[in-house]
Amino acid sequence: MADKYPILSTINFPSDLRKLDKKQLKPLCKELRTFIIEELANNPGHLASSLGVVELTVALHYVFDTPEDRIVWDVGHQAYGHKILTGRREKFSTNRKFKGLSGFPSPKESEYDAFVAGHASNSISAALGMAIGSEKLDSDRKVVAVIGDGSMTGGLAFEGLNNVCVNPNNLLVILNDNNMAIDNAVGGLSEYLTDITSSAFYNKWRFRCYHFLKKIGLMKTSTRNRMVRMGNHIKTALTGGSNIFEGLNIRYFGQLDGHNIDQLVKVLTDIKNFQGPRVLHIKTTKGKGFAPAENSATVWHAPGLYNPETGERIKSKSTDADLYQDVFGQTLLDLAEVNKNIVGVTPAMPTGCSMNIMMQKMPDRVFDVGIAEAHAVTFSAGMAKEGLMPFCNIYSSFMQRAYDQIIHDVALQNLNMVLCLDRAGLVGADGPTHHGAFDMAYLRCIPNLTIASPLNELELRNLMFTAQLEGKGTFVLRYPRGAGEGVAWKDVPMQEIPVGKGQVLKQGSKVAVLTIGPIGNTVMKAVETLGADASKVGVYDMRFLKPLDTELLDEIFKKYKTIVTVEDGSLRGGFGSAVLEYMADSGVALPVKRIGIPDNFIEHGSPAELYHMLGMDSSGITSVLRQYV
Amino acid sequence: MADKYPILSTINFPSDLRKLDKKQLKPLCKELRTFIIEELANNPGHLASSLGVVELTVALHYVFDTPEDRIVWDVGHQAYGHKILTGRREKFSTNRKFKGLSGFPSPKESEYDAFVAGHASNSISAALGMAIGSEKLDSDRKVVAVIGDGSMTGGLAFEGLNNVCVNPNNLLVILNDNNMAIDNAVGGLSEYLTDITSSAFYNKWRFRCYHFLKKIGLMKTSTRNRMVRMGNHIKTALTGGSNIFEGLNIRYFGQLDGHNIDQLVKVLTDIKNFQGPRVLHIKTTKGKGFAPAENSATVWHAPGLYNPETGERIKSKSTDADLYQDVFGQTLLDLAEVNKNIVGVTPAMPTGCSMNIMMQKMPDRVFDVGIAEAHAVTFSAGMAKEGLMPFCNIYSSFMQRAYDQIIHDVALQNLNMVLCLDRAGLVGADGPTHHGAFDMAYLRCIPNLTIASPLNELELRNLMFTAQLEGKGTFVLRYPRGAGEGVAWKDVPMQEIPVGKGQVLKQGSKVAVLTIGPIGNTVMKAVETLGADASKVGVYDMRFLKPLDTELLDEIFKKYKTIVTVEDGSLRGGFGSAVLEYMADSGVALPVKRIGIPDNFIEHGSPAELYHMLGMDSSGITSVLRQYV
Repeated sequence: MADKYPILSTINFPSDLRKLDKKQLKPLCKELRTFIIEELANNPGHLASSLGVVELTVALHYVFDTPEDRIVWDVGHQAYGHKILTGRREKFSTNRKFKGLSGFPSPKESEYDAFVAGHASNSISAALGMAIGSEKLDSDRKVVAVIGDGSMTGGLAFEGLNNVCVNPNNLLVILNDNNMAIDNAVGGLSEYLTDITSSAFYNKWRFRCYHFLKKIGLMKTSTRNRMVRMGNHIKTALTGGSNIFEGLNIRYFGQLDGHNIDQLVKVLTDIKNFQGPRVLHIKTTKGKGFAPAENSATVWHAPGLYNPETGERIKSKSTDADLYQDVFGQTLLDLAEVNKNIVGVTPAMPTGCSMNIMMQKMPDRVFDVGIAEAHAVTFSAGMAKEGLMPFCNIYSSFMQRAYDQIIHDVALQNLNMVLCLDRAGLVGADGPTHHGAFDMAYLRCIPNLTIASPLNELELRNLMFTAQLEGKGTFVLRYPRGAGEGVAWKDVPMQEIPVGKGQVLKQGSKVAVLTIGPIGNTVMKAVETLGADASKVGVYDMRFLKPLDTELLDEIFKKYKTIVTVEDGSLRGGFGSAVLEYMADSGVALPVKRIGIPDNFIEHGSPAELYHMLGMDSSGITSVLRQYV
Repeated sequence: MADKYPILSTINFPSDLRKLDKKQLKPLCKELRTFIIEELANNPGHLASSLGVVELTVALHYVFDTPEDRIVWDVGHQAYGHKILTGRREKFSTNRKFKGLSGFPSPKESEYDAFVAGHASNSISAALGMAIGSEKLDSDRKVVAVIGDGSMTGGLAFEGLNNVCVNPNNLLVILNDNNMAIDNAVGGLSEYLTDITSSAFYNKWRFRCYHFLKKIGLMKTSTRNRMVRMGNHIKTALTGGSNIFEGLNIRYFGQLDGHNIDQLVKVLTDIKNFQGPRVLHIKTTKGKGFAPAENSATVWHAPGLYNPETGERIKSKSTDADLYQDVFGQTLLDLAEVNKNIVGVTPAMPTGCSMNIMMQKMPDRVFDVGIAEAHAVTFSAGMAKEGLMPFCNIYSSFMQRAYDQIIHDVALQNLNMVLCLDRAGLVGADGPTHHGAFDMAYLRCIPNLTIASPLNELELRNLMFTAQLEGKGTFVLRYPRGAGEGVAWKDVPMQEIPVGKGQVLKQGSKVAVLTIGPIGNTVMKAVETLGADASKVGVYDMRFLKPLDTELLDEIFKKYKTIVTVEDGSLRGGFGSAVLEYMADSGVALPVKRIGIPDNFIEHGSPAELYHMLGMDSSGITSVLRQYV
């Protein structure tokens, strides 16, 4: 370690870093970059973004007094360098592994991780709260939000920015512009700092004045707004500059080369103690310092295993089965070739959800709206209103961002469109912020929705076919991340699945297991291990969470003595609860055992490890069934 | 009618309007304004916003070919004039009444109502979808979004704007600036149209070029982004102008006097057929034409009954009981006087939720963040992280906008803060977009939350007291709109309520009714009407949806033969389901009858009418109980 990383090996905490001479920072950046490249070659993770902020990370911890000062990372997968410099270098080989380091900042894991950062665009709002909190509690702490230009397309980031100027605070927002989304032109000024003096004076005056007026009770909302507006006019006059940040009354500094560590340290030191909210706009390159990643940031966003010398990517041994994502992507294209009304909508995930397959062939009919889930849903609703048939694909945990839009803009109008929830169930290494645990519970209460989950690849294909037929209303399809069951689906003619109809996977006599989605296959494996008792267990794939197949349920309730429900979602209000509700409503009283995700946040690990931990894998289900056969 | 409204009385549909001579439009506006003022004097509704857009409404229907062309109103309570001109003048006296006209645009009600518009900020995304839908379906229809500056603070509006320039479309956004939120300075240009010629040429060129490149398959996302950026540079150079819209590549026209009907008609006619997305910025006065409303737009937003001649507001006969809102507002102040860490956060609803009581006394400790629910929650989370104790108050149906933030930014970190859900249950005249029907279902699956609802005013006060005590984690308090039960609460010393503990309202022998929230009082009234059978019915106020009082439930399950659950929320996944889940988990099998909001969207009407319709009032509950006693 010390041989290869003479400086890095001495940095156990940022306090060590701050003892370094400025001249040592550049070589340290080089070491840190090499360390990340070497580590991730063997232990896959998010490479390109972390390489892009190496200099920024070093500079921030060098200039600011972390953890007393707060760094709030937006979309925390860029925070590997931060983790390595803050006491987690030696544990870094456990990154994203079960019981190991989280792949995202995690306040539970370290006091240096100031806030949760799994979903994009939350940093400004959170950091603003922290900055104002610090001010109210008379603390001197500095708060810095680091946000990428991609995250800036999220509405939450805008709501945050729009509020930054309203109350006195010393928030520093660092806009890490790696050319992913934001328009260069918003920054009318081009190089560092044209207006420090005038602005510093001006801001001080404004906040003092504001404080004073509030204290003496003269400041009402209306007055405040008028004053902010007036202030803006004055400022525009003073500085002659104008861009989106200045328009929102936030001082703007930039643009700066985010890979020039000397300049970064200098500028951060300069502006660190300024009063009032500030934006520092830096330009960085995703994948910086590793040629293959620089050339193809999307591929190297999370590249899997690779050779750190040659940049050759190493294919991990995969199953023979296609991914559910492939099935979605190819089937969408197949359907779109026939149904001219089909369009695709994705919030910045065309590759992740495989909508890029359709995008390549039909660029006119696929809309990547950026990180903007709420817009994705309402925009799709608008298209559906005019008669198009949108397939809007959003990861289950990100769909939480569009919850009101599903209710208000889609379901209330009962529009013909399809909401695809990719990454439903436990996603694995990305952990609690990314698990699709809640969607069945949060969607089930919404009127007018049809909600289904396929047992396998072919069922996904057929459900997609069914959903786009005329007059089906709003269809929700949830399916997991990763490999399917190996069932043939390509070029298989598509068939309509009757809405609200489940299927018998296996008849039994004593215990009925009701499932929804691919976890039904796990149940079938579990039953196989029961030996002679297997014949007592019936297995039913209900397919539809809503409407429930009540006809099938009536039969089941008559035939069996015990009901077991199995779902890869929250036990509170999910599929099992739907069964309980129907049972109570029909006056049936049978013992019901529910298997699913319990009422706590599930950590990261491989899906296999997590499902095992929760008793939701084949062996866990077997041991439950043994109690009843 | 014809005497008082010689022109308006001839307008049954916009087609009649379009036959008028331009000179008749000004007197028509006057008549329409008078009509609205007179109608609302007797039948309360949203006055000020509708008065502000009289000229705009007339101009839009005069210039555009509605309903073939679409007008998408943002926050539809400004659409009264629109309703009156589109076939609903005679029915307008039924506005907001049970079985009458909806107070918001409702596509179910009229083909002129292009999209649902109960929650702010959705118009741009929806209209963009419609504009692109029209283009794809080779229709010539024009789509216009009308959005207020207040709604522009919502993240969804920004996400929409940010996507407006990306795909070819002819969307017209009308920014109705009545000085509620947006900064004047964003529009660097000051009067109408400096750059029509150059911009028109430029936009045509850009979209043609873009279309061509997409067709021949040369346009990838990366190329597109680069091109948009390049296009922006060119445009900035061409026009010399710069504002937030221009920065987002949207042509900007304005500002215009929104009460000058002649100019409005002229400008709309001029820009109607332009290619490419456009923003027209108009300035209007809320309450225009009715002096009291002009002077005090907030009071006259929805003023209740008034004398249309004198402007005197007529107090409706109210109950003696204080509003739950008053209890919240006063108690928050009482608590904040003792606990210096308490801060209040509201998304543009300080008056509605009564946080203005604290705001007046402690302006420094209350944050009105504008229409920005997601930010309100994450910002509160940031403050909680630093040790403040935020009370973030958001109406139940608007909290849907902050769903992901509750999960990701609050619950995952188990922060000490309070989320107050005002307007829980059925809200009445505002209808399906505003009913707080889903919160128990969508919140119950979130780990770490404590969720409670008070039986009456005093319980609300005590729950608020409890929630702000140290180490209580995230507390959710839901309570309805309107009058309480008349229980004394003011100046009553506050008491801690043990978390997760329910209370016995009445012992019984045969049927146990389990309730949560103020609907428990309705249950008590129902039981009183049972006569001798009343003694058989036990009533339990569970208080906490989560954690459930399992100890109390165990007792109840032992003692009673039938369980009835009553809740003012969705039956899917709500309180009744929680009881069913616990019952199944503890191996108990009793008949359970659940009373609550069924699985469809509930229309508008008075709460009494709606609860009666759903069998959730005293008489409905009585008839259910009769079946079991």
